[in-house]
Amino acid sequence: MSDVAAPRVAVVIGAGLIGASIGMALRPQGWDVRLEDADAAALRRAEDLGAGTTMAPAAEDVALVAVAVPPAITAATVIEALARFPHAAVTDVASIKSPILAAVGTSPGAERFVGGHPLAGREVSGPAGARSDLFEGRAWVVTPNGASDRARELIIDVVTGLGATAVVMEAEPHDQAVALVSHVPQLMASLTAARLVEADAEAVSIAGQGLRDVTRIAASDPALWAEIVAGNAAPVLEVLREVRSDLDDLIASLGRGQAEASVSDVVARGNTGFGRIPGKHGERRRRYVDVPVVIPDAPGALARLFDLAGVEQVNIEDLALEHSPGQPVGLATLRVLPERGESFTHALRSAGWTVLA
Amino acid sequence: MSDVAAPRVAVVIGAGLIGASIGMALRPQGWDVRLEDADAAALRRAEDLGAGTTMAPAAEDVALVAVAVPPAITAATVIEALARFPHAAVTDVASIKSPILAAVGTSPGAERFVGGHPLAGREVSGPAGARSDLFEGRAWVVTPNGASDRARELIIDVVTGLGATAVVMEAEPHDQAVALVSHVPQLMASLTAARLVEADAEAVSIAGQGLRDVTRIAASDPALWAEIVAGNAAPVLEVLREVRSDLDDLIASLGRGQAEASVSDVVARGNTGFGRIPGKHGERRRRYVDVPVVIPDAPGALARLFDLAGVEQVNIEDLALEHSPGQPVGLATLRVLPERGESFTHALRSAGWTVLA
Repeated sequence: MSDVAAPRVAVVIGAGLIGASIGMALRPQGWDVRLEDADAAALRRAEDLGAGTTMAPAAEDVALVAVAVPPAITAATVIEALARFPHAAVTDVASIKSPILAAVGTSPGAERFVGGHPLAGREVSGPAGARSDLFEGRAWVVTPNGASDRARELIIDVVTGLGATAVVMEAEPHDQAVALVSHVPQLMASLTAARLVEADAEAVSIAGQGLRDVTRIAASDPALWAEIVAGNAAPVLEVLREVRSDLDDLIASLGRGQAEASVSDVVARGNTGFGRIPGKHGERRRRYVDVPVVIPDAPGALARLFDLAGVEQVNIEDLALEHSPGQPVGLATLRVLPERGESFTHALRSAGWTVLA
Repeated sequence: MSDVAAPRVAVVIGAGLIGASIGMALRPQGWDVRLEDADAAALRRAEDLGAGTTMAPAAEDVALVAVAVPPAITAATVIEALARFPHAAVTDVASIKSPILAAVGTSPGAERFVGGHPLAGREVSGPAGARSDLFEGRAWVVTPNGASDRARELIIDVVTGLGATAVVMEAEPHDQAVALVSHVPQLMASLTAARLVEADAEAVSIAGQGLRDVTRIAASDPALWAEIVAGNAAPVLEVLREVRSDLDDLIASLGRGQAEASVSDVVARGNTGFGRIPGKHGERRRRYVDVPVVIPDAPGALARLFDLAGVEQVNIEDLALEHSPGQPVGLATLRVLPERGESFTHALRSAGWTVLA
C-alpha cells in the first residue's frame, strides 16, 4: 500500500465557463479531473487552462460526475452518465431543477443523482474565462430529492470544497425560490424600464438613484431570460398573479381617487418583505445608516474617503454613487453600522469632507 | 449712493429642513433672509442655525419668496404671498406641481409665481438637520407655466446660486415625469418586496444582488408614499395601466406555455428603456465594465482597493458589495470605464487581489 492515496477520479461533462471552472477548482482538492465536450476546441482550451485532462477514465474508477452542459440536454446527459459510471455520484448545474429531476425519474442509478445550482451571479456571463475561484463565497443550492445519503454527502463536500456555501433544498421549493428572488424581480425591473422607452428625454433626465437601483438588472439578455422564465413557467406564473392582484388593487383605488390605503398597505408589506432579505453573511439585514458625502468626480477621491474609513476602523457596508446632470461633483452615500455613523461623520467633516444632512 | 448695494430681501415661509436650508444657502448669495413659520420653536431653531432673521420685512422691498410649507397648504400660502409682497417672485418646493398651479390659477400676481421642485433625494428625510449645501449637485425642477420672464429668470438664478442644476419643465410634464421615474418605480419595488412576506426563509436566503437592487427603495415610509401617490394619481394611474398591460401579456403567454416571445419582448424593451437613463452628469449612460474583486470583510480592505485605484488613476464609477450566507469574504464589483478594465484588473492581480472571471 502506498502512503499517498490515489486521487479520486471526477468526470466533468461540458467544458464551458462553469464546467472548466469546476475542473480547475476540483484539482487542488485532490481530484483527477477528466473533461468531456462535444466541441473539440472548447475541450482543448479547458485542458490548456488546467481544468483537467481528456484521457478517458476507467468507468469503475469514477466517483463524481459534474454535468455542465446547456439546460436542454442536461437531463439526457445525466441519465447517460448514471449508466456509464456505475459508482459515481452525478450532479448538474442547471438553474431550474424540477424538469431535470422529472426527466431523470427512476432511471437506473437515479439514487446517485443530486441536482445542483451554483449561484455564480451576474458577473460570470459573457465571454469571461473560467477561473478556479468562480464559486468562492457564493451560494450553491444542492437538491438531493431522494438521493442516497452517500451521494448527497459527497456532492455537499465537493461544493463546499469549491469554496461555495451549500444550501440544501428540494427541487420544487428551489424552483419556487428562484422564481421569487430572481425571475420575477428580473421581470419587474424590465417592466419598469420598459416604461421609459417612450418617455421624454427631459423626464428621464430627472431620474435619481431609486430608478437606477430598481432597473439595474433590466440590462439583461432577452434571449437568456426568455429561456429561463419559460423553463420555470408555473412558479413564475404563480408569483406574477399575486403581483397582478396587488397591482389591480392599486389601480382600482387610484381610479376611485382613494389610493392612500392601498398604497400604504403595499409599501408597508414591501417594508416587511424587504426586511426579510438577508444582508451580509446570511444574517438578518441590519438597519444601517447612510452617510452622504460630496465628492469631486476624479480618480483618488474615493480612495481618500476609504482611507479615512480604514484609519477610523469603520467598515463601509455599501456604497451608492449619484451624480446630477451637469455637475462636476457627486454624492457617495456610504452605509455604515448605526453606532459608527455619528463618529464617522465627525471624522469626515474634521478631514474637510462635506457630509450632507 | 453707497458703493455697496443693499442686499435684496427674501422671505422664506416654512422653517423646516428645506426652508431652513434654503435660507442658509441664500444668505451667502447676498440675500437678506426673513423667516416665517407658524411654529415658534421651529422658527427659533432655524434662526439659531443661521437661516435668516425673524424681523418682518417691508413688503415693498421683498424680491423673492420661497414657500416651503407642507404640500396641503402650499397653494394657499403662495396665493397669500403673491398678495402680501407685490414685487416678489414667488416659488414653492412641493414635489407635485399641477395641483399647486391649478389652485394659484389667475390669483392676483400669478405671473410672479414660478413653481419649483428640489430633488434633494432620499438622504434628506428624517430628523437630519438643515444645511446650506443640501442642494449642492442636485437637480431642481423649475416650472414657469406662464410666469413672466423676469420671475422665471430670477428663480432659475436663485436655484443655480444654491448649487443645484435648474431643469425647466412645465408642471404637467413634471408630474408625469416623477410618476414615471420615481412614483411607479417605488411601487414596483414595493410590489416585488411584498411577495417576500410569506416566503420561506430558505427561499430568501438565496437572494442575490439583483433582488437587493430592485427592492432597495422598498424600505420607504408607507404614509409618505401614500400621500405622494394619491397626490399624483392621474399620471401614476396612466403608467400603472401600461405596466398592467405588459404584465397581462406575460401572464397570458406563461399560462399558454408560450412565454418566450413575450418575455423576450419585455426584457428587450427594458434594455432600451434602461439605456435611456442618464448616467453621470446627465450624459448618456456609458457601458462600464464590471471588475469583481474578492474582499475580506474587514475595515481597511476597501480602502486598500481604492488606494490602488487612485494610484492607477482609475475612476470607480460605481460599486456593489455582495456577500453570500456564512462567508467571511464578499465580492466588491467595481464599475470602471471599458478602456481601463483590463489594465486595472492586471494591476489588482499584481497587487495580490483576486479578481473573478
